[in-house]
Amino acid sequence: MSTNRLESFSDGVFAVAITLLVLGIDVPHVQPHHPLGHELIANWPQYAAYVVSFLTIGIIWINHHAMIGRLRAADHTILILNLLLLMTVALLPFATDLVATYLRHSNGRSLAAVVYSAAYLLMGIMFGLLNGCILLRRADLLTVSLPLARRRQIFGRAASGTAPYLVSVGVAFVSAYASLAICAAIAVFYALPIASGYESGSR
Amino acid sequence: MSTNRLESFSDGVFAVAITLLVLGIDVPHVQPHHPLGHELIANWPQYAAYVVSFLTIGIIWINHHAMIGRLRAADHTILILNLLLLMTVALLPFATDLVATYLRHSNGRSLAAVVYSAAYLLMGIMFGLLNGCILLRRADLLTVSLPLARRRQIFGRAASGTAPYLVSVGVAFVSAYASLAICAAIAVFYALPIASGYESGSR
Amino acid sequence: MSTNRLESFSDGVFAVAITLLVLGIDVPHVQPHHPLGHELIANWPQYAAYVVSFLTIGIIWINHHAMIGRLRAADHTILILNLLLLMTVALLPFATDLVATYLRHSNGRSLAAVVYSAAYLLMGIMFGLLNGCILLRRADLLTVSLPLARRRQIFGRAASGTAPYLVSVGVAFVSAYASLAICAAIAVFYALPIASGYESGSR
Amino acid sequence: MSTNRLESFSDGVFAVAITLLVLGIDVPHVQPHHPLGHELIANWPQYAAYVVSFLTIGIIWINHHAMIGRLRAADHTILILNLLLLMTVALLPFATDLVATYLRHSNGRSLAAVVYSAAYLLMGIMFGLLNGCILLRRADLLTVSLPLARRRQIFGRAASGTAPYLVSVGVAFVSAYASLAICAAIAVFYALPIASGYESGSR
Repeated sequence: MSTNRLESFSDGVFAVAITLLVLGIDVPHVQPHHPLGHELIANWPQYAAYVVSFLTIGIIWINHHAMIGRLRAADHTILILNLLLLMTVALLPFATDLVATYLRHSNGRSLAAVVYSAAYLLMGIMFGLLNGCILLRRADLLTVSLPLARRRQIFGRAASGTAPYLVSVGVAFVSAYASLAICAAIAVFYALPIASGYESGSR
Repeated sequence: MSTNRLESFSDGVFAVAITLLVLGIDVPHVQPHHPLGHELIANWPQYAAYVVSFLTIGIIWINHHAMIGRLRAADHTILILNLLLLMTVALLPFATDLVATYLRHSNGRSLAAVVYSAAYLLMGIMFGLLNGCILLRRADLLTVSLPLARRRQIFGRAASGTAPYLVSVGVAFVSAYASLAICAAIAVFYALPIASGYESGSR
Repeated sequence: MSTNRLESFSDGVFAVAITLLVLGIDVPHVQPHHPLGHELIANWPQYAAYVVSFLTIGIIWINHHAMIGRLRAADHTILILNLLLLMTVALLPFATDLVATYLRHSNGRSLAAVVYSAAYLLMGIMFGLLNGCILLRRADLLTVSLPLARRRQIFGRAASGTAPYLVSVGVAFVSAYASLAICAAIAVFYALPIASGYESGSR
Repeated sequence: MSTNRLESFSDGVFAVAITLLVLGIDVPHVQPHHPLGHELIANWPQYAAYVVSFLTIGIIWINHHAMIGRLRAADHTILILNLLLLMTVALLPFATDLVATYLRHSNGRSLAAVVYSAAYLLMGIMFGLLNGCILLRRADLLTVSLPLARRRQIFGRAASGTAPYLVSVGVAFVSAYASLAICAAIAVFYALPIASGYESGSR
């Protein structure tokens, strides 16, 4: 299978998932003597979660593009691993909604942050499996032939991006806020120009 | 009509339908003395249904790609049959939500599983009709000319994939869980490397 | 502007609008002694409206494809008229939901059918305006040059497809059911092989 | 990175965001002795906000197409700025829902209009940053080389389109209706044929 339609379908899922995030931002209910401003400000976890999730999905999309761009064709295993990756991406609107809802409740706050970080970790693991399958098992499908050492380097660099999410899951048991700060920091790090080396390096 | 825009529109519907599945996973309501963990675990049918439906739609997409990839152009009948196929695909978020909701209620559990399996069966029948129309009635539109025996073989192999869903509908009247297990097993079977022969064989 | 990205964006809106129709099909609430079957059957207007709207949007998409396929480039007026057409297409999930909800209530049934038919009429009018702009005002942008008589014929045939919706709006004031039957009949007519002449004729 | 998949992903987000606007239009609840007509008419702010937001997102899409069409490749900074632009576009269904809900309540009406205008202002600022980055910092990535004076002119013309939204934010503190009228007027202005010069000029 050529990668054109694989990219078109994947882009569709990424685009829908990233745009559905907005459904997690509530219009406050009208209440007689509560000023709207207070209600909007009280919803700040929804805005924060929206920004972090939007950035993260966007960055995964950029990396997905680089990964699939290296391929000239896809076999059955690549299609299925890509489907499993998209399954974790499409879960993020739920995980984002969960953490934004429970961040304001001491009961459940930590668990919601664990689920949120674990969703990213799962996405990172699926990304790593697909990347490893492409770079290490089906190097014959690459557009440009690369020596094994280089392929291992690209894979290792990408796979190491999963580690901070493992830390974030652990930290979530202690502090939901610290865990979310780690997720936000990861997103900001990859968005900074300094991170472009990681991605252009991996192309 | 060339098949480019047919693929682009179909990919769009598949991508939206598969991503809308996440709307069937609820963020539990905050309740004073119920731990969030219990509530999240109680929602397990939603996660199971999400995984099975996501895999199934994804596999249908892979097969749809192989089917349309054989065409160099589409006539009116193919466009309409494809539309009817998409109509059944777009119904799956509803069927998934229904079965996930009623799996926890003895009242309605079986019927919900019947509807869920029947939705897949309907999708399989529409897929078979479109495939049959392409392979047996409009072989002149194929990119690569294939002998009739080969076309009948591809069609037969694809059509036989509908049978397990017929079984699943029947089993649902007796046991909703067994019926869903069949649907899950079908999805897993087609996701396994062993199934790639069926699809590459049908290209 | 080349028409590639115009088609890609339009296909996206068509695909999202057609797939959002499923959100208008409700999972019945769990109620102790009401069998699920009765509740599912009572929702029949939702299924009927889903089928009619899905077919109609799909057929408009097929015709949109034929219309834009005739163009080699788009000017500002074409882009804006296309945007207004998409604005009416994207309204259909609302109109569908409205008519499916109120078909079971004598209070509001007729008005809901008027709104539903009027939404189709509006879509037909916007389609006619865009088609007229392309065929009669910007014939210089056509891929294949066509004589004026032929362009008038294509436009007339497409524009005449709006008339039945005008009838449907009028009939809705008297009988909601008759009005919806007209909408359904129009969709089925264009889906039948006999209608392909209208579209292939208009290519 | 070539701009093909950047366009495909961006088109997807634009298409989903613009189509999700319809979820902000409510089907009125059935109430025994309230005629449906009154309820539908009372929802007029939802229709007005739908039209204004749909037009505005559509016009931003047209301009986005022109902007990206000038590029032959995208670097990391362009990808990230584009992502931030899409983040503001995807917020518009929320801002539209907010203003449509609160326009009918004296309590919160002004603030909702401030948020709505500010969302457009933010989108305009992100658009300007991306445009500036492309035209002024990475002119080496342009398909057709343009002299600096011309690039500054295009950038200035596009950036000046942000100013009316600044006015609209200010006016919203005094009158929500006047603020929304400004937003509507901006959308209508860019939709008129007279505005095509601004965009074709900027290509």
